[in-house]
Amino acid sequence: MVLQRVGIIGGGQLAGMMASAAASLDLKITIQTPNSTDTAVALADHTIFAEIDDVAATAQLAEECDWITFENEFVDLVALSKIPGAVFRPPLNSLTSLLDKYDQRCFLQKLGLPVPKFCLGHDLTAADWQFPLVFKARRHGYDGQGTFIVRDAATLKTLQQQFPESGLIEEFVPFTCELAVMAARSITGEIAVYPVVETVQINQVCQRVYTAIELSQAVQTQLAEIACTILKNLDMVGIMGIEFFHTADGQVLVNELAPRTHNSGHLSIEACATSQFAQHLRAVSGKSLGDPSLTCGAAVMVNLLGYEESTSDYSAQRQQIAAIPGAHLHWYHKPEVRPGRKLGHVTVILETANRARLIELAEQIEAVWYPHEKI
Amino acid sequence: MVLQRVGIIGGGQLAGMMASAAASLDLKITIQTPNSTDTAVALADHTIFAEIDDVAATAQLAEECDWITFENEFVDLVALSKIPGAVFRPPLNSLTSLLDKYDQRCFLQKLGLPVPKFCLGHDLTAADWQFPLVFKARRHGYDGQGTFIVRDAATLKTLQQQFPESGLIEEFVPFTCELAVMAARSITGEIAVYPVVETVQINQVCQRVYTAIELSQAVQTQLAEIACTILKNLDMVGIMGIEFFHTADGQVLVNELAPRTHNSGHLSIEACATSQFAQHLRAVSGKSLGDPSLTCGAAVMVNLLGYEESTSDYSAQRQQIAAIPGAHLHWYHKPEVRPGRKLGHVTVILETANRARLIELAEQIEAVWYPHEKI
Repeated sequence: MVLQRVGIIGGGQLAGMMASAAASLDLKITIQTPNSTDTAVALADHTIFAEIDDVAATAQLAEECDWITFENEFVDLVALSKIPGAVFRPPLNSLTSLLDKYDQRCFLQKLGLPVPKFCLGHDLTAADWQFPLVFKARRHGYDGQGTFIVRDAATLKTLQQQFPESGLIEEFVPFTCELAVMAARSITGEIAVYPVVETVQINQVCQRVYTAIELSQAVQTQLAEIACTILKNLDMVGIMGIEFFHTADGQVLVNELAPRTHNSGHLSIEACATSQFAQHLRAVSGKSLGDPSLTCGAAVMVNLLGYEESTSDYSAQRQQIAAIPGAHLHWYHKPEVRPGRKLGHVTVILETANRARLIELAEQIEAVWYPHEKI
Repeated sequence: MVLQRVGIIGGGQLAGMMASAAASLDLKITIQTPNSTDTAVALADHTIFAEIDDVAATAQLAEECDWITFENEFVDLVALSKIPGAVFRPPLNSLTSLLDKYDQRCFLQKLGLPVPKFCLGHDLTAADWQFPLVFKARRHGYDGQGTFIVRDAATLKTLQQQFPESGLIEEFVPFTCELAVMAARSITGEIAVYPVVETVQINQVCQRVYTAIELSQAVQTQLAEIACTILKNLDMVGIMGIEFFHTADGQVLVNELAPRTHNSGHLSIEACATSQFAQHLRAVSGKSLGDPSLTCGAAVMVNLLGYEESTSDYSAQRQQIAAIPGAHLHWYHKPEVRPGRKLGHVTVILETANRARLIELAEQIEAVWYPHEKI
């Protein structure tokens, strides 16, 4: 039997967890990253040390690999499209309308899906809209980089100047919670939708993810249907994270799309029959999809975020968290700690639980992880 | 004549600009900082290389200096109070109620000054207040570190857990603009209030400061009176920045106090008869205060913020900005650039101007400074 090989552009924890899932699928992994200390370097079978946007290196990756996939979607589609013989999954065409947040909103709106009210950053005068509003950089924003909550006209005008053609404005949605769905699509068009999760983001950085065990069946079905519509219309191949706002009047609005493995799917490693990483590799390598359903009653995932500048490996805290019954701790082995950096995550799986119990577990983990007075 | 000496705990650009102002006041400066690359090291007369919180080093500073002042207020008051013979200005007692944002709010409220509605972070249940609300770390937050806009109960609960006793909740004030006043108080109780400025903050980082030339005289007087009340009741010695929200119905609310030189006072270097840095040193060294009034019609200050990781010195952009008529560019010579880091600032002074002209100038500067697509 010939082992086939998947190339991943990027070397962070998402690439690392994908590499860990490859062996059981008889796949080899090559990554492209410039940093020898990246999480995925020790887990991949081979690394091409080159910048993420080094197209010559990606051409080399294409020669070595059967398929190429992405750790994150901020890639130069035009440059990549010129590499002879490269098979990208998701296909570059699936990404075209996603890399720019304005294009992404237009794509969703054309499909008739519910989205927050939006317009181009420079199209708006303060008189048209009510403050507060949300101003976003159209490209390259993640974990809240390039997202601004604007309360006054002077700040709006300043942002419009700083992002002359590259800003997007959205209404400030006063949601009651945020929800997310992971979904994958295979080369034959088969779609697998994961259970809905509730996410807690602070300043746009994911802190916690709970299986949404108290969400009504009607909303769960609605989100799954939206996911199917999106993946089908993108001709997606691979996994995708879809984030939603859930409002007080029971509405859901699509917030953002991430055409890749995603933090809100990490709990699938232990809580689902097929992890998001294995599922993505199945889709990328042309296999049929695995079962996305829960294999436990409930689960909670907590990100272990840096809260100081340090080179500590936090072994005492990690041991204490790993000792929680049902806990599975993932540590990304980052050489340098900075505030807000994702250093690892922990997932706790439970046979039965209610939402209050999941919150309690998250609190227990964070009480160990964070020093008494954070920041 | 004997030159007297001021010690500054801290070595960043605020200490640096203070050191630059010392010579004309016949003062020598010693700073305490661990970093040889800090802006102030090249500008001070002497540096004690030690961590900011190294009390033994501050005792040495006290032996060498007539007075000790602070670049920022996050100091250990109890430890400092034990250093024999040290004369701190502002006196440590003036800082006691300012270091904790909750204590600061209580202090302002007791003086009958207008503040946003607030309570302790763990005192609040979601039912009591309307979202959005603002959650802040009680201590050590600056430039938006530790400030969170909260839209839902799950995020609130998460923050309450992460900051068990160390969070402050405030109403989200939908202001029309932010205003600031610098004011200084001498050892004899004399108070000098600077002209009101309008500030533009994006994600709590100061971007621009304008002289508030179109603000009504009534509001200007009100802010000056509030400043006097605060400095007097703190027994302040030195300069202080006071930030305000200005709401649609014409109200002003005191936002935050900074008992030190402050970004909103940088334009005083060229626009006022006495700069905030000279004024602070005058107060610290027991001199009478200088004239804080404008010596020009109007002024605008723009921060030059890092927008990438780099070691560039941006000399081409700096030359182009410095060539703007009336422009004075200050460069902090930081060895490493990171997004959001303050690398320098530029102040443009004008004989006459309206607000629109000041905004236009800020836009002109930012168009040179920031690459076309920021972030």
